[in-house]
Amino acid sequence: MSTLILWSLPESAGCVRNMFFTAADIARQIQGEVLGDGSVPLTGVAPADHAQRGELTYAENEDYFARAEQSAASAILADRNFSSAQKVVIRVPNARAAFARVVTLFFPPPQYAPGIHPSAVVASSAQVDPGAHVGPLCDCQLGEDAHLFPNVTLYPRTQIGQRVAIHSGTVIGSDGFGYVFDQGVRRKVPQVGNVVIHDDVEIGANVTIDRGALGSTVVGQGTKIDNLVQIGHNVVIGEHCIIIAQVGIAGSTRVGSYATLAGQVGIAGHLKVGNQVTVSAQAGVMNDIPDGEKWLGSPAQPDRQMKRIWVAMHRLPELLKRVSGIEKKLDKEPRKKPTR
Amino acid sequence: MSTLILWSLPESAGCVRNMFFTAADIARQIQGEVLGDGSVPLTGVAPADHAQRGELTYAENEDYFARAEQSAASAILADRNFSSAQKVVIRVPNARAAFARVVTLFFPPPQYAPGIHPSAVVASSAQVDPGAHVGPLCDCQLGEDAHLFPNVTLYPRTQIGQRVAIHSGTVIGSDGFGYVFDQGVRRKVPQVGNVVIHDDVEIGANVTIDRGALGSTVVGQGTKIDNLVQIGHNVVIGEHCIIIAQVGIAGSTRVGSYATLAGQVGIAGHLKVGNQVTVSAQAGVMNDIPDGEKWLGSPAQPDRQMKRIWVAMHRLPELLKRVSGIEKKLDKEPRKKPTR
Amino acid sequence: MSTLILWSLPESAGCVRNMFFTAADIARQIQGEVLGDGSVPLTGVAPADHAQRGELTYAENEDYFARAEQSAASAILADRNFSSAQKVVIRVPNARAAFARVVTLFFPPPQYAPGIHPSAVVASSAQVDPGAHVGPLCDCQLGEDAHLFPNVTLYPRTQIGQRVAIHSGTVIGSDGFGYVFDQGVRRKVPQVGNVVIHDDVEIGANVTIDRGALGSTVVGQGTKIDNLVQIGHNVVIGEHCIIIAQVGIAGSTRVGSYATLAGQVGIAGHLKVGNQVTVSAQAGVMNDIPDGEKWLGSPAQPDRQMKRIWVAMHRLPELLKRVSGIEKKLDKEPRKKPTR
Repeated sequence: MSTLILWSLPESAGCVRNMFFTAADIARQIQGEVLGDGSVPLTGVAPADHAQRGELTYAENEDYFARAEQSAASAILADRNFSSAQKVVIRVPNARAAFARVVTLFFPPPQYAPGIHPSAVVASSAQVDPGAHVGPLCDCQLGEDAHLFPNVTLYPRTQIGQRVAIHSGTVIGSDGFGYVFDQGVRRKVPQVGNVVIHDDVEIGANVTIDRGALGSTVVGQGTKIDNLVQIGHNVVIGEHCIIIAQVGIAGSTRVGSYATLAGQVGIAGHLKVGNQVTVSAQAGVMNDIPDGEKWLGSPAQPDRQMKRIWVAMHRLPELLKRVSGIEKKLDKEPRKKPTR
Repeated sequence: MSTLILWSLPESAGCVRNMFFTAADIARQIQGEVLGDGSVPLTGVAPADHAQRGELTYAENEDYFARAEQSAASAILADRNFSSAQKVVIRVPNARAAFARVVTLFFPPPQYAPGIHPSAVVASSAQVDPGAHVGPLCDCQLGEDAHLFPNVTLYPRTQIGQRVAIHSGTVIGSDGFGYVFDQGVRRKVPQVGNVVIHDDVEIGANVTIDRGALGSTVVGQGTKIDNLVQIGHNVVIGEHCIIIAQVGIAGSTRVGSYATLAGQVGIAGHLKVGNQVTVSAQAGVMNDIPDGEKWLGSPAQPDRQMKRIWVAMHRLPELLKRVSGIEKKLDKEPRKKPTR
Repeated sequence: MSTLILWSLPESAGCVRNMFFTAADIARQIQGEVLGDGSVPLTGVAPADHAQRGELTYAENEDYFARAEQSAASAILADRNFSSAQKVVIRVPNARAAFARVVTLFFPPPQYAPGIHPSAVVASSAQVDPGAHVGPLCDCQLGEDAHLFPNVTLYPRTQIGQRVAIHSGTVIGSDGFGYVFDQGVRRKVPQVGNVVIHDDVEIGANVTIDRGALGSTVVGQGTKIDNLVQIGHNVVIGEHCIIIAQVGIAGSTRVGSYATLAGQVGIAGHLKVGNQVTVSAQAGVMNDIPDGEKWLGSPAQPDRQMKRIWVAMHRLPELLKRVSGIEKKLDKEPRKKPTR
């Protein structure tokens, strides 16, 4: 369809390249100190649970440092007094700020040029807008029978499954909202992950789904998303969910399968919402929700509990009067002399 | 204006065509059983209150079945044990799921081609973007002095009145959010209605207004809609309303005239909000609201009632102490011997 | 990038022109009465605190009339019985409705034509889409290293600073939501201000930022705005703020620097939110918030206060039982004879 935007990063960014920095190179760039072998070659960055040999990971606290040591990563970026016998440590004053700068070393900002690069892989059956930029090597993937309505924007490396429909104005793969507060300013953490939309998903109009910071934001098979919904970076949504209009799900939250999120629900980040959960309209979820439960309210509570509170709230004005009545009654009581 | 998208369905879809299926044809397609004359020709589908002779309607319960029998429809799609002396019944295991499939028979999914089809009716005064697709026979209608800013998307059969302004990024006529849960998956209910915007309406930026499932989503004359508002399928809004940013109105709700919905209000579906109603910011409306009333809160309540509760809530921490005080006082009371 | 829309008003609108109306001209157009010298030339309109000599201002009440008299304006549009010894008064039945009509005299609605007007000033380094309309004389300003992703719309006279990134689908400069209720209909107040985005701001996808009614809507340096946020007309946001997804800020509110507004927060209009304020997710702010405070809830309250109330609300069902218990106990008490 004429206004589909297929969009990719050129060769110089966004793809794993045959390139490395040594730990000492990186330390020099970010005013860090190397503990261990500074010549170890590092080919990329990853969170601990995804890191492979030759990659750099980072840790903000003891928990994460322990995981980093157990991972396959070859080096760890850390602050404070962390040190390791097994892995090279690059020590910095602020690990999170330093990590943002390291990511930029491995993923320099892209340079865009219009047109379809000769090395791009575009299926002969794809309909690509003449105004679109499709860069070399990297590309978005669209499954069979994908239907993108006019004015849909796909950012680089978006993967769309089969029989997916995406309505107008929707944006898939915009930068996740990641900033680290560093010396009085908010520094951007480059968002170099992507978005994966599985088969049979339908997405409404003017929806925004952010790319992962590292890794993917995922929408599971058969899930249906209504208009004006916001999905934050690295959110993972299960299968056959219903997400109604104007819901917002903050980064890194996981939602199970067959969940129903009613209109204007907000879900905080880093939570786990179970399978077959129902969240009522306008609820504000600040805690994990176990499988099968129904939660209401803001802050959200389990159904029964919240309704009991709401019913009680209606009786509150009258309760104040009842208590005043009791107090008056008690004040009138003559002072009791203790019985002999 | 250069980026207006005027968009229609081609001949093969979205328009009433000179075509019919017999009740027996339809029953065969959806594994149903015909009770009555299977040769009756059916030319379309409609809800009971709009159905005309020769059309098929459907019923999910006794209420709806009674209405269907009283309608002018020639046949009724129903489940359970419904039967009728007056009309042909097509009996299926799940009426709602079957209806979704029947709609697809009458409205097969469209095939889009760029350019203006020779048979499309486009006014000589209309400014149509060269990249737009305007299909045969069907067309959107725009009144005089309609002003669509860049990047507005109109889906097929949208009707826009006179002196209407629509700001950038707005999407009118995207599919309503309709799914029926059938054997473990969520099947799409085709949304084949449209959107009607009356004269003197102004719509802000990045608004989404869904087409009706069957029939129209309507915005009445003189109503003003702010940015990022969501209007669900088959919502009917009266005249001269004010709908402030980020409001969401769920499907089939009716809003009267001169209503004011403040920022971020949510209104559930199938409700009736009266004339000259005011709903305060962030309220969550779950009930009908009579004419002239003002409601607040989530779940929303009438103004006075909600304010009384909010005032009482502020006194609640102190009330807990007062009651503890009373309980202590009563515990100190010596045991009373009954008087002789 | 190919789909950037750079957009300006043509010469006939939106710019201060070498043109004037006399007070008598204006009074005639709006059925007003001149008190004072009707021949005084008026070259523009402005609010009292910005008005310069030769401009017209307006006043709705005693307060505003006093300020108007102290301003540098040459004439005042007012209703009721206002009069002035120092300035010409144009008296009308409804000052606000009349002002809306006067603004249209000075800023007639624009006529758009595609292409780049010879007199437009476009930097040689700017990348302008061939489909964009760039009108004569007036133009948007983009600083160095500004990065606008596909499908961003800038309305006329938008000013963008350096190193600003704006993600897809965002609309900057759409009309503020201004209407005056006049004789049964809602008349549009022309929105002829603009939007100013300072250096190092990053704006997410599908955000809407309205132009000022008169004067500017401003986003301060280093502020980061997430997806689907709404910023109303004449809002002024300070530096290095964090505004998370789906927040809505109503017109004329001022937010300080280093403020954090969490997801789905709503802030009413004409408020002052201080520096280093934190507003928690889904809160509804209806009052000014002093520097450094943290507020929660809807209606929002200071942190400690709201949490105390929420904790107490959980104890409310049990409290009802405790009070019933007290009442039963008191009813069982035998009637006390007063002691002799």
